[in-house]
Amino acid sequence: MAQRTPSQHARSTRGAGLGTEPSSAVWDVVARVDTGELATAAALLHNLHPADQADALAALDGRERRRLLDRIDSHTLAELLPFLTPEELEHVAPDVALPQLTAALDETPAQLGADVLHAIPLTDAELVLDRLPKAGLVEPLLQHDDDSAGGIMAPELMVLGPHLAAEQALTVLRAAAPAPTVRDTVYIVDTEGVLLGSIGLHSLVFAPPMTALRDLMEPIGPTVTTDMDQEDALKILQRFGLHALPVLDDDGRLVGVTTSDDLLDIAQQEATEDMYRLVGLVDDQALTTPVTTALRRRLPWLLLNLATAFAAAAVVAAFESTLARVAALAIFLPIIAGQGGNAGMQVTTLAVRAMALGEFDRHFTRLVLPRETIIGIVSGIAFGLLVGVVGWVWQDNPWLGVAVGAAMLGTMVVAGLFGLLIPIILRGLGADPALAASIFVTTATDMLGFLFFLGLAALLIQRIA
Amino acid sequence: MAQRTPSQHARSTRGAGLGTEPSSAVWDVVARVDTGELATAAALLHNLHPADQADALAALDGRERRRLLDRIDSHTLAELLPFLTPEELEHVAPDVALPQLTAALDETPAQLGADVLHAIPLTDAELVLDRLPKAGLVEPLLQHDDDSAGGIMAPELMVLGPHLAAEQALTVLRAAAPAPTVRDTVYIVDTEGVLLGSIGLHSLVFAPPMTALRDLMEPIGPTVTTDMDQEDALKILQRFGLHALPVLDDDGRLVGVTTSDDLLDIAQQEATEDMYRLVGLVDDQALTTPVTTALRRRLPWLLLNLATAFAAAAVVAAFESTLARVAALAIFLPIIAGQGGNAGMQVTTLAVRAMALGEFDRHFTRLVLPRETIIGIVSGIAFGLLVGVVGWVWQDNPWLGVAVGAAMLGTMVVAGLFGLLIPIILRGLGADPALAASIFVTTATDMLGFLFFLGLAALLIQRIA
Repeated sequence: MAQRTPSQHARSTRGAGLGTEPSSAVWDVVARVDTGELATAAALLHNLHPADQADALAALDGRERRRLLDRIDSHTLAELLPFLTPEELEHVAPDVALPQLTAALDETPAQLGADVLHAIPLTDAELVLDRLPKAGLVEPLLQHDDDSAGGIMAPELMVLGPHLAAEQALTVLRAAAPAPTVRDTVYIVDTEGVLLGSIGLHSLVFAPPMTALRDLMEPIGPTVTTDMDQEDALKILQRFGLHALPVLDDDGRLVGVTTSDDLLDIAQQEATEDMYRLVGLVDDQALTTPVTTALRRRLPWLLLNLATAFAAAAVVAAFESTLARVAALAIFLPIIAGQGGNAGMQVTTLAVRAMALGEFDRHFTRLVLPRETIIGIVSGIAFGLLVGVVGWVWQDNPWLGVAVGAAMLGTMVVAGLFGLLIPIILRGLGADPALAASIFVTTATDMLGFLFFLGLAALLIQRIA
Repeated sequence: MAQRTPSQHARSTRGAGLGTEPSSAVWDVVARVDTGELATAAALLHNLHPADQADALAALDGRERRRLLDRIDSHTLAELLPFLTPEELEHVAPDVALPQLTAALDETPAQLGADVLHAIPLTDAELVLDRLPKAGLVEPLLQHDDDSAGGIMAPELMVLGPHLAAEQALTVLRAAAPAPTVRDTVYIVDTEGVLLGSIGLHSLVFAPPMTALRDLMEPIGPTVTTDMDQEDALKILQRFGLHALPVLDDDGRLVGVTTSDDLLDIAQQEATEDMYRLVGLVDDQALTTPVTTALRRRLPWLLLNLATAFAAAAVVAAFESTLARVAALAIFLPIIAGQGGNAGMQVTTLAVRAMALGEFDRHFTRLVLPRETIIGIVSGIAFGLLVGVVGWVWQDNPWLGVAVGAAMLGTMVVAGLFGLLIPIILRGLGADPALAASIFVTTATDMLGFLFFLGLAALLIQRIA
């Protein structure tokens, strides 16, 4: 996501009505376009905050959107582009005429330009780049991985040499009239472009006018390289409480910054990924994903789930003769499976989240494993007694109560252990610890839970039947 | 979380070695404290980055931590406090001697001061406030809800009247030498303190020196009130792509700002909460939560899970006579339950996340419900055929194959519908859409899946038996 300049907010004369939801005027615009009143729609759109303008464009269908886009100027387009989500950008960008898009991108930060060019066909992107005055800033961004610090960095910075005096520095910056992404920091580099330090604009303004920048500058703090994973860049930014993190090339030259604004989006993406992976939603998807894509992405993992369900079924099959003698045993299978699966998933969720937030280490495992074992035993005893008594009374058979109660205890302990071990094992194998963890955890609890219960019932069959 | 001033990073002379993990020197400090070499430990600590110093303090036990704290000065303490996580702060703050804590808090942002005072006993907090020179800034923060914009805002701002000229404004700011939380924006207020607009420090520095601030200032954009939920403040900040959001009292007076840095932490908290609630982890907890607290928080929801599991068991019990004739039917119960539960949870997870990110509305429901129905039918046919054939071959009975295959189709459709409806219903009832959703979804898929399968088997019992 790109940075937004303050002028973009100038159109809304009061803060009133700028809330968490799109204003109702957005739906007016959409309705006017639908009824063909394009001039009215364009006039209404023009009075909206760019965030609302972006919502209106995103809410339209392709054909209607293209009609409305014909009526708006490239400056308006440049102002609203930063407010489209990455997914909305993928839908909207291909609908914009190339000359209009080129003019708009000359006004937007290079980082957003790169996002837009990623969203349109390659041949179109090349046509835009050929005509874009600031192509020199945008092109390097396209060469880095989407998920790397180099792919998300902003190259527009205030950069000066170390020998200028504070007063001169302000004069130079004023003459350059830059629109930097980080507006409160001036970066100091040597003649090769190698980062030497930085000065807060605040310090620069309030420093004695003749002080040289090299005497004002603060030493380099944490930095990242262009190829670093964005998730690691996020962790460093958070760990050191920074607003912006300089991105260096392999020779230590400053090529951009990644800011906490970008990383908010990334933090939410990463959280989304973890939640999805826990239930076997592995590739990029949302409720809006087209049906065929959604099927292609969900079916393989549901197939894995089915395969593991057959493993649990095989355990039940091994005890078919026991079940044939006491059909009521089948009643308790969903109880064992449901309770074990939920308890296991609770622990897995806690473990996956702790790993994602960098709060899980070996030290920690030594503490947590015994703790989850105790929790499993205590809750196993509580629910074992409860289920045992209910089983006894319901089926009027104390020995069935013993079998289901003891199996419940065993299942709860196993749930805690596997809930913790499965993310650890997945991570140890180099996979994402959340990867389809629910499938593996519930398979383990189902299989062992059924084994405990039907195994005990088989041993006690003379007394239960 | 509080803002960090650049001087805090000055101690690390190079960016090298500042990564996502604590440096190895942190473990050196911990080891020296453990062996009683306190002078060496304090000297080592003094050379670390404050983020590493915070990690060292957090890693120590209470008694050892107090020994090390006795050896560090209040300035060092003030620098490392911002790098403790909220949970670490709760453990560390009560170990600091009150005079040392008071001296340190006078150097930290008021927002962090409020967090620290929340972490120590009330009587101690009152003693600190009595002696704290900046108590006037900290006290108002304590009066707001922890989760409200007023509870997380920072009150240190650059604030000026509208009639000053740009040059005068810079002189006033220079004389005041403020350490504001938002270092790139000057807020303009009237004599009552009511917010009128804002100016980027950048614009102020580069404006013609005699221009009045009222002619330079940008109108008010989005603002929030002190009592707004922090989660809504996050959504507004993201929606409008802002770095800082002014917080106003009921009379429109500017009392603080909340920044995107605070909101990164909040976004991660909210994501964590949603993940946890999905599996019935409702109250604040982590893998480090003490056993008794963890049990108190997990058991009630596991009990609810057990109650719903009995509902599924009751469906099975209703078909006990059918199961008594063909025990092999029990083998397929885990397959129906496992597949339906996983498919349902996939949809629920997508829906809950879309709601949390503000991407779920009524418009959307009309599109998504038919789409998930189609996905349910297609995957139901695929898995129904597969399971039907396996059932037929495995049990050498085509009619058993028909029953399990048709039940699988029905279960997959129901899973998609309930997976979507349960978060919508929970939200409609005013509850969190993620609240124990896995429990409700799997109960619905278990009950209906068993009903389809055992009901069909009962109808076909002459042919299956």
